[in-house]
Amino acid sequence: MNLKQLSHMLQLSQTTVSRALNGYPEVSEETRRRVTDAAKRHGYRPNPSARRLATGKAGMIGYVLPTGASVDIDPHFVEFLSGLGDYARSHELDLVLSPADADDEETTYRRVAANKQVDAVYISAPRPADRRISLVNQLGLPFLVHGRAEGLDFDYPFLDIDNEGAFHEAARLLVQLGHKRIALINGDDGQTFAIFRERGVRRALASAGLALPPERIRSVAMTEENGYRSARSLLEQPEPPTAIACSSLIMALGVVRAVRDLGLTIPGDVSLVAHDDVFPWLRPEHFSVPLSTTRSSIRAAGARIAERLVARISGLEEGARGEIWPVDLVVRGSIAGAAG
Amino acid sequence: MNLKQLSHMLQLSQTTVSRALNGYPEVSEETRRRVTDAAKRHGYRPNPSARRLATGKAGMIGYVLPTGASVDIDPHFVEFLSGLGDYARSHELDLVLSPADADDEETTYRRVAANKQVDAVYISAPRPADRRISLVNQLGLPFLVHGRAEGLDFDYPFLDIDNEGAFHEAARLLVQLGHKRIALINGDDGQTFAIFRERGVRRALASAGLALPPERIRSVAMTEENGYRSARSLLEQPEPPTAIACSSLIMALGVVRAVRDLGLTIPGDVSLVAHDDVFPWLRPEHFSVPLSTTRSSIRAAGARIAERLVARISGLEEGARGEIWPVDLVVRGSIAGAAG
Repeated sequence: MNLKQLSHMLQLSQTTVSRALNGYPEVSEETRRRVTDAAKRHGYRPNPSARRLATGKAGMIGYVLPTGASVDIDPHFVEFLSGLGDYARSHELDLVLSPADADDEETTYRRVAANKQVDAVYISAPRPADRRISLVNQLGLPFLVHGRAEGLDFDYPFLDIDNEGAFHEAARLLVQLGHKRIALINGDDGQTFAIFRERGVRRALASAGLALPPERIRSVAMTEENGYRSARSLLEQPEPPTAIACSSLIMALGVVRAVRDLGLTIPGDVSLVAHDDVFPWLRPEHFSVPLSTTRSSIRAAGARIAERLVARISGLEEGARGEIWPVDLVVRGSIAGAAG
Repeated sequence: MNLKQLSHMLQLSQTTVSRALNGYPEVSEETRRRVTDAAKRHGYRPNPSARRLATGKAGMIGYVLPTGASVDIDPHFVEFLSGLGDYARSHELDLVLSPADADDEETTYRRVAANKQVDAVYISAPRPADRRISLVNQLGLPFLVHGRAEGLDFDYPFLDIDNEGAFHEAARLLVQLGHKRIALINGDDGQTFAIFRERGVRRALASAGLALPPERIRSVAMTEENGYRSARSLLEQPEPPTAIACSSLIMALGVVRAVRDLGLTIPGDVSLVAHDDVFPWLRPEHFSVPLSTTRSSIRAAGARIAERLVARISGLEEGARGEIWPVDLVVRGSIAGAAG
């Protein structure tokens, strides 16, 4: 059965049927239900070309992908994509990745907007006063930010996790366990998520009259090797930290290796807590000492970004709505009371 | 400067200029050089819309992405994307990911072909007699396979690494070191890469009169946990293997954990070699005992797939050319002679 036949049977216009099936708000709930039921009963699957004609939409979400020999895409991108793809599939939406020179993403954003090849874009890994957000806003392209950027003079729609709250809670627990020298192995501190995490740790320490001096902070690309190097340099100081908060599970692998190489133990000598994006292929409960984590599924975030983009494209969501997800603090064997 | 001005200056048609800039074969080398030089000198950047009009191409590469709650995309997909994106960027090509129901990719391939939204697709993780390859071939959509599928009755273009040769060489070295009980922790043995790796190990053992019995093979999704479970169940057998070949670095993390939990050592009790796709965030030389690997950069494969797709789209590559990359065997501390 095609759109024409379905419309004829329901005695509705093809445009109405198409809009009903694609969640446009101008169709009444009753009509929508009647159309959806009939489509299901007769095995009708909307043809995207027909849909595009009826709705004037491209049926595509865009993402500008920074590339270059020196750019490493983080593996959490895959998990995000899994979630986004899973939702997009149910709406027959495609995702267009437009590779950009990491030093000049603006050119690519302008091209994406000019070509009208996508209905909306999402922006990830934002920095303070991120120029991509201003640009996309100015170009009039519907968008959603995964994360947040402070220092812009307008509001914008975003989805973020509570990075500051998560690292505040983790550090607060370490303080309550008697730790006084707490270190932070963070990601790129040019990015908002890392800034917020540092702020959370700093605030928890300050509440207890403790400091987070520069020599107890590392800000690095989130690889196993950088986790190792950061942990070694921290633990070889004259007054080493007794607890470490770490921004990724992959870096935590390196921290565990460094602790072992130095003849120390977790949690005997060092307590460790790390952020977990929930990868199916590396689980904190299976570290040699099960790892305490701040946990938030980046796959769920991908699905939610897709859901909200669909809502924005069809006009069901408007304005600059911000959504901040709380983060679980999951305590396992890698943290203990400070010695002495 | 726009296309019209550039064409006028060169006294060539806009179509010729556009084709010259996009590598079409019908333009002479001399003209191409003249056009490229002028474009560079005057800072002309081709407008993709104009290019599409001139060439009849969408300027997009397609990939059908299997999704679903039970589908985990492997992190090596990110590295592949990095390489592909890096090359595609220099040709202003976008990548369209079309999410598909993992149990019914055919519907999505048909939609992608019908919409003419991409100029070519690539297919990854092929299985024997893979129906996606037959389908895309039949739909007349230009394509390239990353990997290989045996059992099809036609030839097709592909890029693969020599999985059989790599695991043959690794197993041969273990045999030469005196190992007689060698185990294989493999990926999904419904996929060609895993079939070829098993074949390589089996062939090396057979040459020495040794067997690879079913109880020394595991075929699992490539997670840390599955590496751990597989290694434990192998090493707790009455006659445990003295050497293990493993299909991924992430599984190897689990193998190392299992060996440690059992109070054994690498390479004293167990030699270990694993396949390395070359992730920037997890390096085999930084395992607690540096890991021997079969090494092939999946990022380089991504770039090469993009390069060949561009060549196929523009007609510079035709026919069913297969390309098989040799794999390095990199020996580090994780392998040693068999005890006793």
